[in-house]
Amino acid sequence: MTYELYYWDGLQGRGEFVRLALEEAGADYVDVARGERGTPSMMDYIHGKHGYEMPFAPPFLKDGELIVSHVANILNYLGPKLGLVPKDEKSRIFAHGLQLTITDFITEVHDTHHPISTGDYYEDQKQEARARSKAFLKHRVPKFIGYFERIIAANPAKSGHAVGDGLTYVDLSLFQLAEGLAYAFPRAMKNFDKDYPGVARLRDAVAKRKNIEAYLKSKRRLAFNESGIFRHYPDLDQEPA
Amino acid sequence: MTYELYYWDGLQGRGEFVRLALEEAGADYVDVARGERGTPSMMDYIHGKHGYEMPFAPPFLKDGELIVSHVANILNYLGPKLGLVPKDEKSRIFAHGLQLTITDFITEVHDTHHPISTGDYYEDQKQEARARSKAFLKHRVPKFIGYFERIIAANPAKSGHAVGDGLTYVDLSLFQLAEGLAYAFPRAMKNFDKDYPGVARLRDAVAKRKNIEAYLKSKRRLAFNESGIFRHYPDLDQEPA
Repeated sequence: MTYELYYWDGLQGRGEFVRLALEEAGADYVDVARGERGTPSMMDYIHGKHGYEMPFAPPFLKDGELIVSHVANILNYLGPKLGLVPKDEKSRIFAHGLQLTITDFITEVHDTHHPISTGDYYEDQKQEARARSKAFLKHRVPKFIGYFERIIAANPAKSGHAVGDGLTYVDLSLFQLAEGLAYAFPRAMKNFDKDYPGVARLRDAVAKRKNIEAYLKSKRRLAFNESGIFRHYPDLDQEPA
Repeated sequence: MTYELYYWDGLQGRGEFVRLALEEAGADYVDVARGERGTPSMMDYIHGKHGYEMPFAPPFLKDGELIVSHVANILNYLGPKLGLVPKDEKSRIFAHGLQLTITDFITEVHDTHHPISTGDYYEDQKQEARARSKAFLKHRVPKFIGYFERIIAANPAKSGHAVGDGLTYVDLSLFQLAEGLAYAFPRAMKNFDKDYPGVARLRDAVAKRKNIEAYLKSKRRLAFNESGIFRHYPDLDQEPA
């Protein structure tokens, strides 16, 4: 059965965390809103035209009759099927907890450019965005990325991965975080590899995986842009703390 | 086995969503940081003193050797055990998706009083908090609570519940959202029952459940206060849109 991924066309956004998992696993999937059926077919689900199981927002995944909404829920569902998480309950629950921490961090990344209102333009909340970005870069990046650095270091498997002795969807998401931060805040992230060597090594290892390397070179991997979560607004960047 | 819930003492906060589930089910649990072992025993986990499986933040649940972090992860874990979600995969995944939407909403509630920096005082970001609250009350409350209203109405079981024909942890969380919003924004929520009759009826039905009623009267239910997620700052409240 072909997986159907529903997410906004034209940006990486939250959908990218799911895409990386599907690509790494070489899964059979279609990116529906980018295809012939387009965004309206996605909005039909959001607007409840297919009934009760309407997601609040993209991304969501359709697997046969099953609809799974929210990135972490999707990855928790796909993980065991795609071999992207160890199968034992303890590892799955731990990986899901890590992914939910990543989810929280992604929201904070988004709010660096939209601290007041998602419905308004960045330009209308630029001053507040500057203040929020400053606090984010000074306090939140070290708190979150430092946490993942400690997790990788403490992993009893000493594998360089976040969970167990092999690649999981958590690693793929950490790759995306590291890439996104470097795109959005190139100045502030100048010392990233020195400050977070474990995360940096993991990022590089993910980039070199055969399927990910092919994906990153493909047209399916859109470039980061200012419609996504990670946006490069030079005014929000700053020298490393 | 006694469940151990770890969460900050002195506030309802995110821990309350787990507490409501444990209380409704009459589960055997201890609220560790509020007990003899106190907050330091919680911080030992956060600081990695028990090794690798360190949660990023409270709340987390300990069930024997298993540590489960993040509210939605905990409720997804406890749901089937406590009879607070239907056991079939489709319902569990759908309920988890709803809970993750609730999670996102809770973050937005928090950011009404802390739009710039979690590390700074409300008083230092009061003006921005006013702007964020205005957008939140005008756009985000209708979007989120309206969504749950539609979910309840579209539930094929026509049970008045969010999922299936009986109470789930999602209903308990919606009760907490409705109560919290009314506490934080009493003026803006004046028409809540008229605007969201399904959610309002569900809130009242939850409040009347035997175990919840007893819990709400007990000393274990702390009052809402200005250390929690839902804070009553009159400056942030406003007339209904």
